[in-house]
Amino acid sequence: MNTLHTILTGDRPTGQLHLGHYVGSLRQRVQLQYEHQQFILIADLQGLTDNGSNPQKISHNILEVMADYLAVGIDPQHTTICLQSALPALAELTALYMNIVTVARVERNPTVKNEIAQKGFSRALPVGFMAYPISQAADITAFNADFVPVGDDQLPMIEQTNEIVHKMNSLTTTPVLRHCKALLSDVSRLPGIDGGAKMSKSLGNTLTLSASETEIHQAVSAMYTDPNHLRVADPGQIEGNVVFTYLDAFHPDKALVAEMKAHYQRGGLGDRQCKNVLESCLQELLAPIRERRASVIQDKGQLMALLRQGSERAHEVTQQTLHAVKRGLGLPVLF
Amino acid sequence: MNTLHTILTGDRPTGQLHLGHYVGSLRQRVQLQYEHQQFILIADLQGLTDNGSNPQKISHNILEVMADYLAVGIDPQHTTICLQSALPALAELTALYMNIVTVARVERNPTVKNEIAQKGFSRALPVGFMAYPISQAADITAFNADFVPVGDDQLPMIEQTNEIVHKMNSLTTTPVLRHCKALLSDVSRLPGIDGGAKMSKSLGNTLTLSASETEIHQAVSAMYTDPNHLRVADPGQIEGNVVFTYLDAFHPDKALVAEMKAHYQRGGLGDRQCKNVLESCLQELLAPIRERRASVIQDKGQLMALLRQGSERAHEVTQQTLHAVKRGLGLPVLF
Repeated sequence: MNTLHTILTGDRPTGQLHLGHYVGSLRQRVQLQYEHQQFILIADLQGLTDNGSNPQKISHNILEVMADYLAVGIDPQHTTICLQSALPALAELTALYMNIVTVARVERNPTVKNEIAQKGFSRALPVGFMAYPISQAADITAFNADFVPVGDDQLPMIEQTNEIVHKMNSLTTTPVLRHCKALLSDVSRLPGIDGGAKMSKSLGNTLTLSASETEIHQAVSAMYTDPNHLRVADPGQIEGNVVFTYLDAFHPDKALVAEMKAHYQRGGLGDRQCKNVLESCLQELLAPIRERRASVIQDKGQLMALLRQGSERAHEVTQQTLHAVKRGLGLPVLF
Repeated sequence: MNTLHTILTGDRPTGQLHLGHYVGSLRQRVQLQYEHQQFILIADLQGLTDNGSNPQKISHNILEVMADYLAVGIDPQHTTICLQSALPALAELTALYMNIVTVARVERNPTVKNEIAQKGFSRALPVGFMAYPISQAADITAFNADFVPVGDDQLPMIEQTNEIVHKMNSLTTTPVLRHCKALLSDVSRLPGIDGGAKMSKSLGNTLTLSASETEIHQAVSAMYTDPNHLRVADPGQIEGNVVFTYLDAFHPDKALVAEMKAHYQRGGLGDRQCKNVLESCLQELLAPIRERRASVIQDKGQLMALLRQGSERAHEVTQQTLHAVKRGLGLPVLF
């Protein structure tokens, strides 16, 4: 990653972004935007693949996510933030790629298989959901992305994208599409405050980036620790102790956290003390984000204007790819 | 059909059009264009759904089909002829509709089931082919078509389209999409010259609209009649006798054909005589079509210009529908 690369990342606008997004990707994006050409896609079409009957949930959250981006320091001068549904090339490339991917192949995609099981679709699986790896391949290739930041559970999506790239390049007169690589995050997934593996608004175990001081206080107070650590003097467990996982993820002073861990393990450090340290750290982190967010969300016209500007720029890039693919296949580009 | 209606029809550009297309739809379209608002879609994207690995077959035939249209008398002043891949709204609407149709539902579509069996896809079924009823619904609704000329084997596609219309209209703030009706052709499907049910170039049992005089002569000579009608004096069978099926379809003098049938059935009318009558009729029908076709295909630049003009007009109409659907779902229309 020493030279300038193109990076595509994004989020489904299914709700406000939370601390898990911050530590898993947003923080990294703020850095990457100064070093690389970064596109961030607000993936409303993908959000609809499992919310087809509840489109207002998706449309309502487009500007909420936009506000989250600006609040954490993603800068529209350095990052192209764009809306998936505003970019026709993405749907058009999807339509073209769908013809060179079999139903059997997408059904075999491990990520899709897991998600279908998790979401309990069974026979009510929407066609759009089944096809979403193809739509993701369209997104990635349309932007000529070199790198796609993903968790390791998403590696099969990158593999499927590169299969499509390979196949399309064999069909066009000269190769048109760029292969991509996963940019694996070194941060593991942040657990919910209850210790659950998945942070989600519906489980009530998360902290959004707009959480108030009180909400932060309550969340940290309710946070799962070592249930057997009954007295301060007792030795406590670090593994699975959410307070220490969050300290690792958020506290800037790694030496202090290491010291606290040792102290907690040999006994003599109370949960309340640990939580106080974590709470200060989270209050300090989230206060400026919350303030910026409250300020930008007031002017939705301005948020929409920024999204339009980014989408116009993204439109130029993605149209170029679409036209190159069409010409490669021999299809006329009429206008 | 007394008032002005919008009609959408079209063809997959998988080869030159033939007599089966002429009698089954082209002839009707020439009439309809003076009475209604007619759109004809050259469905290259749909052509790719089962030719994904052979895109040149599709791209090569786009202007061939355009030439066929002009040759039979479809007039770009009265009919909007447009290219499916040039209209982003069609892919974008498909992407939206795909989220409200389940995999189980498209798999249950009888037309799709039959075609999957016919084409022998089994597990190698492309996602695009499975999804093509949804793409057809996008086409029909994008143009606000009231009527879609189809054979009765295509009725399940109309039903599925109206299901999508119903569901989308329940999701948008006010109903946006128009229900459509099938315009059933009163002409049954033209058999191949060998008597086979399906006319197809690959079976070599068809006559394209550009067939030469010699090709027409040879085709009529080789035409399947009554295999038991060995001597002129013998009574002959009309049922399954391709010469009489074609006379019914093409000969303008119905009384003459009725008389010939009676004569043939009671004996005394030879196959050669019947074939001569049919050949004259086909030569007369196809000569001007062949000449016009030979003339228009010489100027591919002009064909492409006409296709661009029609597509630009179609783009305006289909973008309006797309924007109405997006607004109805609460999605921003950025540009």
